[in-house]
Amino acid sequence: MPTPDHRLLNGIPVKTRIIDEVRDYTDRQDTMPRLVSILIGDVPEAAVYVRNQARSAKAAGLPFEQENWPGDITQETCKARLLEMNDDPTVLGIILQRPVPEHINVRSLQSAIHPLKDVEGMNPASIGNIVYSDVALAPCTAAASVELIKQTGLNMEGLEVVMIGHSEIVGKPAAMMLMAEGCTVTVCHHMTRSVPMHSRRADVVVVAVGKAHLVGPDMIKPGAAVIDIGINQIETEDGPKIVGDVDTDAVLDVAGWITPVPGGVGPVTVAILMRNAIVAHQRQIAAGWL
Amino acid sequence: MPTPDHRLLNGIPVKTRIIDEVRDYTDRQDTMPRLVSILIGDVPEAAVYVRNQARSAKAAGLPFEQENWPGDITQETCKARLLEMNDDPTVLGIILQRPVPEHINVRSLQSAIHPLKDVEGMNPASIGNIVYSDVALAPCTAAASVELIKQTGLNMEGLEVVMIGHSEIVGKPAAMMLMAEGCTVTVCHHMTRSVPMHSRRADVVVVAVGKAHLVGPDMIKPGAAVIDIGINQIETEDGPKIVGDVDTDAVLDVAGWITPVPGGVGPVTVAILMRNAIVAHQRQIAAGWL
Repeated sequence: MPTPDHRLLNGIPVKTRIIDEVRDYTDRQDTMPRLVSILIGDVPEAAVYVRNQARSAKAAGLPFEQENWPGDITQETCKARLLEMNDDPTVLGIILQRPVPEHINVRSLQSAIHPLKDVEGMNPASIGNIVYSDVALAPCTAAASVELIKQTGLNMEGLEVVMIGHSEIVGKPAAMMLMAEGCTVTVCHHMTRSVPMHSRRADVVVVAVGKAHLVGPDMIKPGAAVIDIGINQIETEDGPKIVGDVDTDAVLDVAGWITPVPGGVGPVTVAILMRNAIVAHQRQIAAGWL
Repeated sequence: MPTPDHRLLNGIPVKTRIIDEVRDYTDRQDTMPRLVSILIGDVPEAAVYVRNQARSAKAAGLPFEQENWPGDITQETCKARLLEMNDDPTVLGIILQRPVPEHINVRSLQSAIHPLKDVEGMNPASIGNIVYSDVALAPCTAAASVELIKQTGLNMEGLEVVMIGHSEIVGKPAAMMLMAEGCTVTVCHHMTRSVPMHSRRADVVVVAVGKAHLVGPDMIKPGAAVIDIGINQIETEDGPKIVGDVDTDAVLDVAGWITPVPGGVGPVTVAILMRNAIVAHQRQIAAGWL
């Protein structure tokens, strides 16, 4: 058996730990309301995500229901159905799978999901609460990157973090969450004059851009941690392959820690979704909903 | 008459321009609903703010009403009154003056103000919308600092901005707004290892900490712009004096632009409040409220 590479920051044990914590909670409940996953139209690329979520929910002791809504459903009908679920005490949380058909305004639908049922942390009100350092229902991928940085054991206070990518669902909320942990955060993006000038001084580089091999070893300070959120399909001699935004093999020679793709941020993201579900449960109880 | 110092980034002409724009709008309306300012208890330090707001509202053609609520009012009564105002079409926007008495949870009250009436941009949902680059009803001080940076004529895209201070009402939302403008933003705070290491490489330094003379000339790159959000009262030989977080006289020798205190960010903040009021008006019309 080959020695494991300790520079690889594996997401699987982190996922297992979180799922076990959720299971401990659900085991102590008489009954748990269900998570509802919604697919609108025919979205084969979402199938693997849904399958993973269903599997993790089962392991965590959370009922999980998959709804498929027709591709020609109207925005109004979607919204009405979501509002019904907000009022339904048997629905614990709502997961709106993306992408949605072109005629659907996804952000408006996300806003229609009540913050207490917004287990994906996508409602603008949920994200506003992150600014107020109330990170309970945070966007799952952003929270997963924070969890993996903590896993290194680095002291978060004063940690120099450079985030590459300023998307609404990852870069910006992750930056806010890292600030709340005491990190000094710089957010770089496609208009930044020199991304390497920033990334080379960082203790931790978080990359969420969606470009294969964007980050090479010349951009990383020796010993730094690299969190790779990208998921890109590339063609190789052996057929298609999933890679992140980091040239993992080359950066391994420089970095202190690096999350592999697949097997790094991805598994932890699903686990955070389950953790959000029990936080939602506790909040709904506190609010007198359950 | 002495030559004006062109390094001083004066807020008064910016305020005047914005108020004139608001006036143009209100002049074209048959009638405008009113802004309501709420003071809870006896808050002498808020009086000067309220007076400034009332004066600016008058100049902008916006009806302005001052309400004084008793210092022993309950949280529940406050909330009930705010919800009534949310439903009252004669109320355009609600301004909750701070500080509030200790027994009042200000954040909970801010959350009770409907986002369409939240002219101060303090509701977490409003702040969440900033993350989504929808900057319409932004926190006024944060928006004022962005407005003053634009006033320099510097190209916002790729601009290196260092924010000192990561408060919820200024630092974090301003960072989000600057990212939306294309700036590369670093947020420093009391846990940052070396603030000067960051501030010395910045094209623009925004300071919102609340410590007199925190920023000296050794922290600023020659030619950079310095936006001073601090308001501190210090004792001098000539009695008490209001100063910012920047040692303005000393930094003037290095900086390309610097906002004076008073007379920099403050006047623009009040003008942004009035601009938020007409944005709220347009949104309420669009939502069928008016």
